[in-house]
Amino acid sequence: MKRNVTLKDVAALAGVSFKTVSNVVNHRDDQMTAQTRERVLKAINELGYQTNHSARSLKLGRTGVIGLAVPGFAQPFFGYLTDEAAVAAQEHGLELIVSVYEHLNNGLDTFVRKAPQLGADGWIIFNDQPLPPTASLFHQSFPIVVSGNRSVHGLLDLMSTPNTQGSRLGTQWLIDGGNDIVAFIGAPKPLFDIDDEREREQAVLDATDESAILHLKGYIQALHARGRTVDWRYVMPCSTISTPPGERAAHRLLERCRDARIAVPSAIMCANDAVAYGVISAVSQAGLSIPGDVEIIGFDNLPGSQYVVPPLSTIDQHVDRYVSKAIDRLLARIDGDDSEPRTYMLDADLIERGTTRRHG
Amino acid sequence: MKRNVTLKDVAALAGVSFKTVSNVVNHRDDQMTAQTRERVLKAINELGYQTNHSARSLKLGRTGVIGLAVPGFAQPFFGYLTDEAAVAAQEHGLELIVSVYEHLNNGLDTFVRKAPQLGADGWIIFNDQPLPPTASLFHQSFPIVVSGNRSVHGLLDLMSTPNTQGSRLGTQWLIDGGNDIVAFIGAPKPLFDIDDEREREQAVLDATDESAILHLKGYIQALHARGRTVDWRYVMPCSTISTPPGERAAHRLLERCRDARIAVPSAIMCANDAVAYGVISAVSQAGLSIPGDVEIIGFDNLPGSQYVVPPLSTIDQHVDRYVSKAIDRLLARIDGDDSEPRTYMLDADLIERGTTRRHG
Repeated sequence: MKRNVTLKDVAALAGVSFKTVSNVVNHRDDQMTAQTRERVLKAINELGYQTNHSARSLKLGRTGVIGLAVPGFAQPFFGYLTDEAAVAAQEHGLELIVSVYEHLNNGLDTFVRKAPQLGADGWIIFNDQPLPPTASLFHQSFPIVVSGNRSVHGLLDLMSTPNTQGSRLGTQWLIDGGNDIVAFIGAPKPLFDIDDEREREQAVLDATDESAILHLKGYIQALHARGRTVDWRYVMPCSTISTPPGERAAHRLLERCRDARIAVPSAIMCANDAVAYGVISAVSQAGLSIPGDVEIIGFDNLPGSQYVVPPLSTIDQHVDRYVSKAIDRLLARIDGDDSEPRTYMLDADLIERGTTRRHG
Repeated sequence: MKRNVTLKDVAALAGVSFKTVSNVVNHRDDQMTAQTRERVLKAINELGYQTNHSARSLKLGRTGVIGLAVPGFAQPFFGYLTDEAAVAAQEHGLELIVSVYEHLNNGLDTFVRKAPQLGADGWIIFNDQPLPPTASLFHQSFPIVVSGNRSVHGLLDLMSTPNTQGSRLGTQWLIDGGNDIVAFIGAPKPLFDIDDEREREQAVLDATDESAILHLKGYIQALHARGRTVDWRYVMPCSTISTPPGERAAHRLLERCRDARIAVPSAIMCANDAVAYGVISAVSQAGLSIPGDVEIIGFDNLPGSQYVVPPLSTIDQHVDRYVSKAIDRLLARIDGDDSEPRTYMLDADLIERGTTRRHG
């Protein structure tokens, strides 16, 4: 079979970088000289490279199908991610197939072994487990972009999420709005095995991995940026960052305030929207008003968050742009880009809704 | 290419029914004579039919991959269905790929046109829209089992859900437990365009199609079975049977009771669990106790329903068995079963949790 013509082949013949060729085929060529563009187009013609995705898939024996692998759909975030990936794939002229893996023995390991028979040109794989550099995920011959917050040891492209930046943004905004006590709900439980509070804090600040602790890191960074210290009585662990543990953690926090006769926090930063749903429920049941007595901010901006009562203020990590970027990277890898793997992260923004007051 | 050997070929050679062959290869042969079993096994040997799914896929050029198509994941039910389908596929020795279609122009029509290029041997397709017999879904050359409550006009196998039976069961149980007024939340809105209440009731009793109205039908059947009439002041419409409309409908119902000075219902049957989550929230916010003042029953038994506060009593439609049965039917069709299409429906059971009282 004739070897597939890749963007890399075009770049080699034209004597330009992969990025330059990619810019030409994606019509982002307004920053380059006419001469460079001409050279790239000539090489494309000479090699018979096809830029249209569906035409390309026919010509080069590709399927025009990409895959998305997620652990499962128990967490509403993965439904949201999948729906947005379907839209983004369509916008790229591609078909999307989805696979779930957490029910398999050895989960992701088993999945990556089976993935080639599912017929996609490449896979975006969400990973929420710590993996060593020897894990099979990192040693496959098909194109992969990893999604999530776990280290890929520089072995693959990683689409990371702005957990730390987002939680810092939300916490600072709550402090700047006049809240003396901002609590955090959704810290990882194992962290509390570290008895010494200074050591525990340092462990959080040193973290580079794992969703919940990166959120907590942003919370602590915000306290420091505003000249405050961490009061661990207001930092609540959750077994998983989902709704029922969030509700139980909020109940525990309010009990603690009553029993220890310490002030109820006037604001709560949550590790994600799912946790925030539970926090809203617990705070309402305690007879406190939202946002009058307690302000609450989530993270993710799930589609359902605008419909809860009151509508949830949250950090938007722009999942639409996130999956679109992941698909761009995957297509580049499918097209033969063999540059060093990189980590990508988008900015996060605060969405003000009904669980926060208007801040001057 | 050599034609695939199917169960139908085996049945023809052995001179037995397709069902008999299927029972043999699936080890459900304890009800047949040794002679019949022998004849089937002989035909299987003669034709070289392979009963092991993965071996079969290698031998016959099949992929060993089946597909599940759902509208999208905005409704938590579809995440639950997908997770259960992944488990059931694994138990059948198959791989599962998932596709979403509601973001596509012409949704399902576009999907079925593209499905063959996704490389599965056949598809389980959830459909929640009314489709005429001419719809492209019903005229494809690849094996399809339809899931949902919409009519397939006898053109394909349909895995239906026990909406009517389940809502009848729950409502009767609430009446038998001593509730004088049982409300229903999650009726379809267009129904209320029928002004005459007798006509409206008849329209519900005549319905054979559409999820929400089939639930309401079970509610009305239960009232009739217990010698009661429908009081439409206690039947609340929802734009979609999801959490925020459920919460708003419950608020409206409680306002109506206050404004019209009629009794608050002591029990509420909900069209599904998602609606029930909103109803729990609204009833709690109104200062009523659950289940002391108001009992609540959902439908679906979503995984999250055991974790809401209080844990939700609900009708379990056994989604695990449901998808397993759908896969059985799909495999039979892939294996060449060309018997008349049929509709399958499993039984539903009441799961008593914290939103209902113990009934004598």
